[in-house]
Amino acid sequence: MFSWIDGVAADSLPASDRGLAYGDGLFETISVSHGKPSLLERHMSRLALSCERLLIPFDAFIVRSEILAFSALLGDGVAKLILTRGQGMRGYALPEPCAPRRVLTGSPRPNYPAANAQHGVSLFACQTRLAEQPLLAGMKHLNRLEQVLARSEWQDPAYAEGLMLDYSGRLIEGVYSNLILIQKGQLHTPDLSRCGVAGVMRSELLAQAEALGIDCFVRDIPRLELLGTDEVFLCNSLYGVWPVTRIAEHSWPVGPLTRKLQSIACDLLDN
Amino acid sequence: MFSWIDGVAADSLPASDRGLAYGDGLFETISVSHGKPSLLERHMSRLALSCERLLIPFDAFIVRSEILAFSALLGDGVAKLILTRGQGMRGYALPEPCAPRRVLTGSPRPNYPAANAQHGVSLFACQTRLAEQPLLAGMKHLNRLEQVLARSEWQDPAYAEGLMLDYSGRLIEGVYSNLILIQKGQLHTPDLSRCGVAGVMRSELLAQAEALGIDCFVRDIPRLELLGTDEVFLCNSLYGVWPVTRIAEHSWPVGPLTRKLQSIACDLLDN
Repeated sequence: MFSWIDGVAADSLPASDRGLAYGDGLFETISVSHGKPSLLERHMSRLALSCERLLIPFDAFIVRSEILAFSALLGDGVAKLILTRGQGMRGYALPEPCAPRRVLTGSPRPNYPAANAQHGVSLFACQTRLAEQPLLAGMKHLNRLEQVLARSEWQDPAYAEGLMLDYSGRLIEGVYSNLILIQKGQLHTPDLSRCGVAGVMRSELLAQAEALGIDCFVRDIPRLELLGTDEVFLCNSLYGVWPVTRIAEHSWPVGPLTRKLQSIACDLLDN
Repeated sequence: MFSWIDGVAADSLPASDRGLAYGDGLFETISVSHGKPSLLERHMSRLALSCERLLIPFDAFIVRSEILAFSALLGDGVAKLILTRGQGMRGYALPEPCAPRRVLTGSPRPNYPAANAQHGVSLFACQTRLAEQPLLAGMKHLNRLEQVLARSEWQDPAYAEGLMLDYSGRLIEGVYSNLILIQKGQLHTPDLSRCGVAGVMRSELLAQAEALGIDCFVRDIPRLELLGTDEVFLCNSLYGVWPVTRIAEHSWPVGPLTRKLQSIACDLLDN
C-alpha cells in the first residue's frame, strides 16, 4: 500500500479537507495490470462529468498523467483516486479559489474467490434502500453511508454481494457493482438517473454489447421482474463480471451471454 | 485555528480514514464561550444516538473529556468535532476491530453581521431538494453534498441562509440551520424523520418552550403554509436565533415570541 497526495508520496492529508468534512469529492477505483490502468478513458470521462455537476474544477491533463505514472509504479493491483474539493474554510460555501486535492492509493488486487467468476454468486437482499436524489445519482461521490449501512447487513461469506433497491422497490445495483439482466438475448439494466452509481464497466459492456448487435435497455426495472429473467450478472471495474445464480427465492443458471460478456470484461481488465 | 487528532495536537490524518473515503462519520459544531462548550449534553446525546444508528462504537467518556479540555484551551470560538469510523481496509465492510477517530478543530466565532439577529434575514429559496432517506435522517453525518450544492446556488450576501424543501415540497430546514414557524402562539417545526438534521439548538428551544407552556408541534409542513404563519425563525448552535423576515414573496415582521426564544438562545450560548 502506497499513496501520493497531489503527485507527491504522502499518506496523510490536512484535517481541514472538504473531502473529510462533507464527503465533498469523488473517487475512482481503477484496475491496473502490467503497469497500465484499465478503462482509463471511461474513468476520466465519468470524473469530468461528475466534476462539472459538482462544480469542482477538473484538470484532466494532471489527473491522467498522474494515474498513468502511478499505475506504472504499481504494476499490478488497484489504484484508487480520491479527488476532493480541497481545503475549505468553515461552512458549506464553495472555497474561492478552489484547489482540488488528488489522493492516489495503490493496493493489491482483492482476493476474490475464483468460484465467484466461475460458478456465480448469491446476493444478499439488503433492507437498506437507496434514496432518490437525481442531483447526485450516477456519480461515484464520497457520500457513501448508504453503501456502508447496506454492507453491514451481512457477514456470511456465502453472499459475495448485496442487492439494493430504491424506496419504490425498483432494482438498482449491488453495493459495489452494477446489475444487468438478460431477457430473450437482450440486456436490461436499471436506469441510474435517480440513484445508484453508473459504473465504468457497465458503460463499457453496454457499448460493446451494442457493437455486437445485442439490444441494450436502460430502464426502470421492478424487483418482480427477476422472475422472468433468463440470466443475471454483476459487473464492476475490478472483478469484471460475476454471474448471479441466486437472490432470495430466485435462481438462475450461468448462461451463455453472461459468459460472453465475462470474457470481454476479462480482456478489458487484462489490458 | 488549531486541532487535535485522537487527543494529540495534529492537523493531518491518514488518507485511508473512512471519513474521507465514504463520509463514514459524524460531526458536531460546538459553540465555546468562557472556555466552556454550550449545549454539551445535547451534542453528546445526538452523537451517542447517531453512533448507535451507524454502528460506530462510541466512548462517551473520552469524547466528553476531550471536548471539555479542548474548549478550556480554546476559550471562545467554535470547536468542531469530527468522529469517523477510523481506518478501513478497501471496501465498505465495517472494519473489525473498529477504532473511531476524533478530530477536534478550533476556530474563531464566525463573523455574522449583527443585523441578522437584530433585524432578521432573507432566505434564498434553494432549488436543491433533500432526498428522503429515513436511515440517515436527523443525523449530522459527513455525507453533506446536498448542502454543498444548495449553498452553491447563491453568492448574494443579501441572503444569510437558504431554505431547503424535500422532493414532496415540504419545508425541511435551512442549509445550516433549523426552521421554526410560529402560528397563533404555537411553535411548528418540520418533522425530520425522512431528511434534515435535528439541530441541538432546535431540540433545546423546543424543550424550553414546552417548559414555558408553549405548544410545540413537530410535523410535516407544506411550503404553502408559510402563507398563514405569523413569525418565522432559524436556529442553530452557533448564532442562536435569527428572525426570518423574507422568503421569496413572503415576508414577516420580527415577532415577540421569536424575540423571547432568541433571548433564551442567547443565554444558552453565553453559558
